[in-house]
Amino acid sequence: MQMHPNKDTQLCMSLSARPGNFGLRFHNHLYEQLGLNFYYKAFSSQDLPGAIGGIRALGVRGCGVSMPFKEASIALVDELDDSVKAIASLNTIVNTDGHLKAYNTDYIAVEQLLKKHAVPKGSTFAMHGSGGMGKAVASALRDGGYANGVIVARNEAAGRALAQSLGYEWQAELGDLRPQMLVNVTPIGMSGGAQADQLAFATEAVDAADTVFDVVAIPAETPLIVRGRAQGKRVITGLEVIAIQALEQFVLYTGVRPTDEQFKAAVAFARG
Amino acid sequence: MQMHPNKDTQLCMSLSARPGNFGLRFHNHLYEQLGLNFYYKAFSSQDLPGAIGGIRALGVRGCGVSMPFKEASIALVDELDDSVKAIASLNTIVNTDGHLKAYNTDYIAVEQLLKKHAVPKGSTFAMHGSGGMGKAVASALRDGGYANGVIVARNEAAGRALAQSLGYEWQAELGDLRPQMLVNVTPIGMSGGAQADQLAFATEAVDAADTVFDVVAIPAETPLIVRGRAQGKRVITGLEVIAIQALEQFVLYTGVRPTDEQFKAAVAFARG
Repeated sequence: MQMHPNKDTQLCMSLSARPGNFGLRFHNHLYEQLGLNFYYKAFSSQDLPGAIGGIRALGVRGCGVSMPFKEASIALVDELDDSVKAIASLNTIVNTDGHLKAYNTDYIAVEQLLKKHAVPKGSTFAMHGSGGMGKAVASALRDGGYANGVIVARNEAAGRALAQSLGYEWQAELGDLRPQMLVNVTPIGMSGGAQADQLAFATEAVDAADTVFDVVAIPAETPLIVRGRAQGKRVITGLEVIAIQALEQFVLYTGVRPTDEQFKAAVAFARG
Repeated sequence: MQMHPNKDTQLCMSLSARPGNFGLRFHNHLYEQLGLNFYYKAFSSQDLPGAIGGIRALGVRGCGVSMPFKEASIALVDELDDSVKAIASLNTIVNTDGHLKAYNTDYIAVEQLLKKHAVPKGSTFAMHGSGGMGKAVASALRDGGYANGVIVARNEAAGRALAQSLGYEWQAELGDLRPQMLVNVTPIGMSGGAQADQLAFATEAVDAADTVFDVVAIPAETPLIVRGRAQGKRVITGLEVIAIQALEQFVLYTGVRPTDEQFKAAVAFARG
């Protein structure tokens, strides 16, 4: 990758407990392809206020925020985009001359993907899980006009709270429900996890659905996606979510929107 | 320059009111040549405590500190190297697992250069100027065994204070003195400055000296250096100072000492 750092190079960064390579490869690749004088660095921290204070003091242009900082960061920024207000969870901070505005590009990505894949409005759905990405996904579903949903979560307190905040039902198990769309926001199917080879929903429910949507990104082809794809269902993968959320961060930081071809090449590079 | 940033890339940085390109080009070039997974970024800031707090919170490995932060930073670090204690002015912070130790590699560079150029111990000297680099240079002279010196500075308060703290004399003007070594720490001769074409000492004094030493680095060939060189004097340039101080920072940050050839190539690249 060609880089010519100089004193005008702008820094963007990520902040998470366990930094990965996807975001930094995605952003740095596009900076180079588009000839933008930016550099992207992944950080972890034990000191969130110190880290956000550093972003301000050093003029870091943008910061992607991952677990466990998405909620606690809210009190440390100056302005909340609508994508954050509904969820009280941010994943993106844009620093304009010391003014920090928070966005949730996970929400924005889910909103876009429901349209892109033309999931029929009014589809019934079940979302499995209530943590992590749950709030962003469920809020985007609600705001996208998917009013008939059930949150399936073993954690009753978290599940009920999320469901009630958005006008959905909560159930501990899916049971006999056969919704048109199944959405997984648990780690089931995630590479390296204890349930890597498991389906996030019962086979019968998958086979009865029209759409399966998994936010697990590694692998993109989770057991849920594999089964849905094999049966000709509409599928939305976690890779699409992380790619589009990263793209929207890129646009917010740089003001430049890559072409679809550039975007796809950056995703391929970032996964490599 | 080939760079392959990943999640393990370590950041080093500089902090100054007006960032330049020398340091970042020097460090990034050596990272690449030596295959070290580091990246160097220049920052400016209006908020020194926030910036140093960010270094801690984000685990930035090292920071070069320039004007106007060299003295105020002292209260914000955890440990002072001997090179800082004598001067109460730092130019380097090394962060080891959140413990910040301060160094003054300007002092270290001047100490090395006096030895490298074999300036005879006991040489008399005059140093023109009392601000900026003055403390580091005068302290290195004193500790190097150059006991007979005079600080020449129009600013009486600063000049006297510096001189007295190190056991030197102060004078407002050089007058009839003809010291063996002339040292310039003022901006006289600096490119773009109001006195870019002026000699930092009277012609007669330059011609009578054995050694001329200028800390002005841009250009390396200041009028003082040009005249000294033309007359066959021993010359020490500001370029040597900034190059060696950067080298010593590099060693402190990475634990790796480049070869002389790699060092010279990095200096040439950094100036380019």
